[in-house]
Amino acid sequence: MKRLPRLAAAFALVAAAPALAAPNPDTTVGQIVASPSYRAAVAAFDSDHDQWVEDIVAITQIAAPPFKEEARAKAFAEMLRKRGLDPKIDEEGNVLALRKGTQPGPVVVVAAHLDTVFPEGTDVTVRREGTKLMAPGVGDDSAGLATLLALIDAMNAGKVQTRSDILFVGDVGEEGLGDLRGVRHLFTKGEYKGRIGTFFSLDGGGLDSMTTGGTGSKRYRVTFKGPGGHSYGAFGIVNPMAALAQTVTGLYKLKVPANPKTTYSASVVGGGTSVNAIPAEVWLQVDMRSASAAELAKLEKQFLAIVPKAVAAENAVRSTKPGKISAELKPIGDRPAGHTDPNADIVRFAEAAFHSEGINVKKGTSSTDSNIPMSLGIPAITMGHIAEGGRAHSPDEWIDTAKAPNLKLKRILLATILAAAGMP
Amino acid sequence: MKRLPRLAAAFALVAAAPALAAPNPDTTVGQIVASPSYRAAVAAFDSDHDQWVEDIVAITQIAAPPFKEEARAKAFAEMLRKRGLDPKIDEEGNVLALRKGTQPGPVVVVAAHLDTVFPEGTDVTVRREGTKLMAPGVGDDSAGLATLLALIDAMNAGKVQTRSDILFVGDVGEEGLGDLRGVRHLFTKGEYKGRIGTFFSLDGGGLDSMTTGGTGSKRYRVTFKGPGGHSYGAFGIVNPMAALAQTVTGLYKLKVPANPKTTYSASVVGGGTSVNAIPAEVWLQVDMRSASAAELAKLEKQFLAIVPKAVAAENAVRSTKPGKISAELKPIGDRPAGHTDPNADIVRFAEAAFHSEGINVKKGTSSTDSNIPMSLGIPAITMGHIAEGGRAHSPDEWIDTAKAPNLKLKRILLATILAAAGMP
Repeated sequence: MKRLPRLAAAFALVAAAPALAAPNPDTTVGQIVASPSYRAAVAAFDSDHDQWVEDIVAITQIAAPPFKEEARAKAFAEMLRKRGLDPKIDEEGNVLALRKGTQPGPVVVVAAHLDTVFPEGTDVTVRREGTKLMAPGVGDDSAGLATLLALIDAMNAGKVQTRSDILFVGDVGEEGLGDLRGVRHLFTKGEYKGRIGTFFSLDGGGLDSMTTGGTGSKRYRVTFKGPGGHSYGAFGIVNPMAALAQTVTGLYKLKVPANPKTTYSASVVGGGTSVNAIPAEVWLQVDMRSASAAELAKLEKQFLAIVPKAVAAENAVRSTKPGKISAELKPIGDRPAGHTDPNADIVRFAEAAFHSEGINVKKGTSSTDSNIPMSLGIPAITMGHIAEGGRAHSPDEWIDTAKAPNLKLKRILLATILAAAGMP
Repeated sequence: MKRLPRLAAAFALVAAAPALAAPNPDTTVGQIVASPSYRAAVAAFDSDHDQWVEDIVAITQIAAPPFKEEARAKAFAEMLRKRGLDPKIDEEGNVLALRKGTQPGPVVVVAAHLDTVFPEGTDVTVRREGTKLMAPGVGDDSAGLATLLALIDAMNAGKVQTRSDILFVGDVGEEGLGDLRGVRHLFTKGEYKGRIGTFFSLDGGGLDSMTTGGTGSKRYRVTFKGPGGHSYGAFGIVNPMAALAQTVTGLYKLKVPANPKTTYSASVVGGGTSVNAIPAEVWLQVDMRSASAAELAKLEKQFLAIVPKAVAAENAVRSTKPGKISAELKPIGDRPAGHTDPNADIVRFAEAAFHSEGINVKKGTSSTDSNIPMSLGIPAITMGHIAEGGRAHSPDEWIDTAKAPNLKLKRILLATILAAAGMP
């Protein structure tokens, strides 16, 4: 249902060019890159290059630990205000700034995430070596926010008009236990709920790939409890560790498809107090993922059946006189799987934009903010915002701000976004 | 070999009383309790009762965390010095004070342990409610050390002479990971190595039981290592958690005898860093115990076979391309099992001493300092030092210093020790 307005727009285009069955994305992109306003815009990428680098440094150095993005959000809103927009911070903590289009209709969102994976107290000072910048979070996703600002600067410099409104978003909670909360709010509760027709996430690096599939994930913390007791005196009673072990063993017997890729991991474990005590409580963190929502649901169902079976088996085989084993399942992550149709406009526009720069882009699957719109059937892709970088999520994280490849990437991003938003 | 001197002494007694096949323990104990010096000694228990209570309080309030018994050891040595003995602190930290006998020969040891289970910083202030004393460690084994002092006071008051030397010991490392290191040192490395013929441990409470069997234990920390990796990207590689789970599952399938009681426990577990990572390392603490050294060895052997089997199974079933699973077994506890022959002099003397007070004493099995001599074939028993107490190892630990039952218990202890040491 959410895709209807976009289809309506496509039919309108068809009506305007009756000889074509559908608009040719290469043609659309070709017209955009040839336009004077686009050319003026991309000239600004060049002249503003140093500003872009300084924005990356400034943003990176405002720490944004998980669930603590507020300081960076305020600073980012101020940066948007300086660019002539009227940003607001929504109830979830997302920064939203609308750049009006010429026509009513669905909104195009361009988002980068505010949060990093690094905890409070991490030294986020940026070190420079030539064009390389090094700091925790510098690439993921500080440079994404700076690239978003550079796109606005360029559009302003080129006096670029779009048919659709473009909503620029700095969102919270993309990483880990943040569980995509910012974008989830945007699509399911915020003021733009039901009004977004296209979604771009600027996340990650690389000049030859984009993300058109969203790996879904389900994560649980399972706590096994029992009576506990003295290792010698109480021997023979149920042990929650045995139920945990059977759960892991059961999980690792499951067969999952290689395609769509589906995975599981028993990742973190803990519990027990002393070597001479049968533990009263042990716990386990489990991660399950799939590129397919159906396969993920199937895997989750199997896992949720294994836990009570393991508990029942332990309660059946040892004494429950002082108490039984129980298991408590707490969801700690839920990212919906999804994908954007390879023939969707947004994908074809991006392919055409890469192609205009001589690049055959590869389509991949990953877990990003785009998972949310993909799972809702709203066309979404995640594109890189930096030509080269690495070691994301590690203290050695780095990016390369070398001018030529980054100008190229920005040109591709702008062409794709303008094709999706339409130029009047 | 270590028991020969004691047997020689027994034969000497037989020679002195040719009508008997062996000395009757009741007769021996009867003669002791009727002796003027014993009667003078037990009168001191009565007159010194308040001093005993104050000694318990003073000792309890000198914290003695695991591996940090030094302050208490020094204070205890000073208390022994005030009683006319010449204490020394050995290389391991044990306090040793010899009370000379009238004849050369094997030494009788009377020991209580200095250490408590409570960590540094625990409030060890004693609270009093009538005759009840409450504090962490008050009963286990602070009151044992005070009772040891009361025995010396009484022997001094009664001018009691013994044939054998009596070595009074305040030993370190009885609890948990201390792993009986104090008494182990005494029997295997210290200056009295090879010279101890009889061992008494004053540990625990109760007026109707004593410990003649030593539960052995073997404890391991098993660390499972693997390559680790991204939960989605590296799916399919070996997971050390799966090997750990199979180890626990394998252990909990083992059948062990109810008699001699043999037990195991998978007690503490940990490892992994993030829900979205296949862990590179997980670990498990396992406790195995038996009243029988042979059964304990059998259980340990089975466990040590389960670990590599679990590792091999995991390496066989998933990819080892980035690295294999390995397991490292670190022993973290080794208490030998053992028992003292029910017909050994020491057991029969104790039974006779209880009997002289109208008590039919029960014989039990436990893990105490006596495990070490028992495992070496040296007669040893562990006796209570307080008539009533409870909640040992918990912050609510308590003892009751009520006079009558505690005088009775001290009379039993003194009669047993004097019977074992012999009176000239």
